[in-house]
Amino acid sequence: MSDGYPLTEADLPALTLGAALLGTGGGGNPYIGMLRTRELMRAGATVDVRPLESFGDDEHIGSVGGIGAPVVGVEKVEEGEECLRALRAVEEASGVKVAALISAEIGGANAMEPVLTAAQAGLPVADGDGMGRAFPEVQMTSFFIYGQAPEPAAIADDKGNCIVFKDMVDMYWLERFARTAAVDMGAGAGFATAPMSAGFLKRYAVPGTVTQALDIGRAIEKARASRRDVLGKVADAAGGRIIYTGKIGDVRRELKGGFAMGHVELSGVADHAGEAGRIAIQNENLIFWRDGAVEITVPDLIMILELDTAEPITTELLRYGQRVAVLAMPAHPLMKSPEALKVVGPQAFGYADIAYKPFAA
Amino acid sequence: MSDGYPLTEADLPALTLGAALLGTGGGGNPYIGMLRTRELMRAGATVDVRPLESFGDDEHIGSVGGIGAPVVGVEKVEEGEECLRALRAVEEASGVKVAALISAEIGGANAMEPVLTAAQAGLPVADGDGMGRAFPEVQMTSFFIYGQAPEPAAIADDKGNCIVFKDMVDMYWLERFARTAAVDMGAGAGFATAPMSAGFLKRYAVPGTVTQALDIGRAIEKARASRRDVLGKVADAAGGRIIYTGKIGDVRRELKGGFAMGHVELSGVADHAGEAGRIAIQNENLIFWRDGAVEITVPDLIMILELDTAEPITTELLRYGQRVAVLAMPAHPLMKSPEALKVVGPQAFGYADIAYKPFAA
Repeated sequence: MSDGYPLTEADLPALTLGAALLGTGGGGNPYIGMLRTRELMRAGATVDVRPLESFGDDEHIGSVGGIGAPVVGVEKVEEGEECLRALRAVEEASGVKVAALISAEIGGANAMEPVLTAAQAGLPVADGDGMGRAFPEVQMTSFFIYGQAPEPAAIADDKGNCIVFKDMVDMYWLERFARTAAVDMGAGAGFATAPMSAGFLKRYAVPGTVTQALDIGRAIEKARASRRDVLGKVADAAGGRIIYTGKIGDVRRELKGGFAMGHVELSGVADHAGEAGRIAIQNENLIFWRDGAVEITVPDLIMILELDTAEPITTELLRYGQRVAVLAMPAHPLMKSPEALKVVGPQAFGYADIAYKPFAA
Repeated sequence: MSDGYPLTEADLPALTLGAALLGTGGGGNPYIGMLRTRELMRAGATVDVRPLESFGDDEHIGSVGGIGAPVVGVEKVEEGEECLRALRAVEEASGVKVAALISAEIGGANAMEPVLTAAQAGLPVADGDGMGRAFPEVQMTSFFIYGQAPEPAAIADDKGNCIVFKDMVDMYWLERFARTAAVDMGAGAGFATAPMSAGFLKRYAVPGTVTQALDIGRAIEKARASRRDVLGKVADAAGGRIIYTGKIGDVRRELKGGFAMGHVELSGVADHAGEAGRIAIQNENLIFWRDGAVEITVPDLIMILELDTAEPITTELLRYGQRVAVLAMPAHPLMKSPEALKVVGPQAFGYADIAYKPFAA
């Protein structure tokens, strides 16, 4: 059994890039968290990435991340120790000291926040997360889907405020209270949820996703350097497949109920000339249609990449005329069970008429 | 030194009536809290009203009340034990058991909530409060003005959710977070603030206001029965003065930033024929003008009573054509100090150009 590996300063750009891709268009920008983590590493901090199996079943692992107003790009902390303060509040409220941290969301900014907090606290990070991608709401993790207690959780801001969610009816109430507190706190805040046993996480975390993000990031860097079959190499590293290439013809976006809602219309190019593509957005890329027929839906991953560089394009940067590739990846089995689909399937996003059909890569 | 007196079922209507008058048009309706308290008293619960001086300086006293969306009439709890659960959460977070409860706001519904919670918890209530009237926001108490810690505080709803405000930068942040949590909780929730020492409250609570509300309520009941000089007797009992009688000519109300804002135009009758009256409303009655000149402002009390019955009229029940009397009462000295005026003077309500001139009864 491997005991993991140390994450070094040199790994951070690849982790950032891989996390951005797994953000499926959303998840916030990991860049600021990366800069803060790099600073700590340059000052001597180290963070080990350890496989879930390396922890004793009774050890506790904490989950921290940024939480913001539910609009794209704000899931970043402001002052730098918000997540650490939220973690300490949860430890105090639960009477449990955590042995490691885990990301709730490997896609986007929240890939980096647990690494930053781990560097501050002198803890390792567990190799895995609660989504295998990005989703917009607190309850949309394998942790909560499979029984993580909604309490105690805590939220902290850059000014010194800290709120503890002491008794919560369920994870949906936690999402509601945490979200409005985050809005009051002004965009980004640090969020910590109830510590979980490593035994629980060995069954219910999406495993290996820190390493997966690193591998994807390194593959993108390497493919770009070689300039040969960049998209194909990235798809292989991600365990996915390029399903479409096209030009963006129209982008509609609006803020609705705090979410960045909208869709993108594409006209096919190269092998896909003549095919009409369409992607629905709700912070993240939700659904892909080809010639009017649903082809891929959440929880499977839909990523829009720049055609030449395989650079992941977040929803807010989509523009008329961009030439893009659509990369699809199957979600982890934990996110596709009947109980998971209730929380992260098309219906959970308001698409009552669209049934989930698993994508195979 | 008196040890106080037991509050009986027979006292509750008078307390309700006096509290409604001290609500200065707002403060929410104490009626539901009264019914719940009566039920407990009929089942054998007793609640002693004790003067602040009867407590040892080191004993701790808790403050509980309803908190709602900042619109008139919703400061009522729904299920009945919300305040008790918030109190228990604050006791746990502070490590302090309280020896009694005190109202933050004797005007309106929050005169009764501490009595209800005291009946549930088997505690006495301290004779006093933090306003001597009603005000719309959490920070507007003598407690917070003179140094009550903003943390820990807690809010609980009827469904089983409970949130602890663990670290708060100041009382304004507490107001903000508690208010949006209350909105999420749906109208009414129970709120408990940090326990205070009796030594602190002997200096900084508005003293004797439970008894004052009872006395006012009894005076109204008695004056109505006698049908002679009802207004004069009520004014005497309240320590105030009838400053105007008139007919309501216009009522404008709108919801603005969550507050019921507006004004009432009056044309004088009887001794005040020919005088134009105007009252500004922000949940409570804020400012009284006579013939265009400011005469009374917050924190002094402005109450609108039915001309014949001296029934206090809340702002949402003001109607064109009503014949009313305006009763004014000086605020307690604790609410008129320079530090208090910053929090509850005309400026705190957005009237930058109106200076506070103390009213003498």
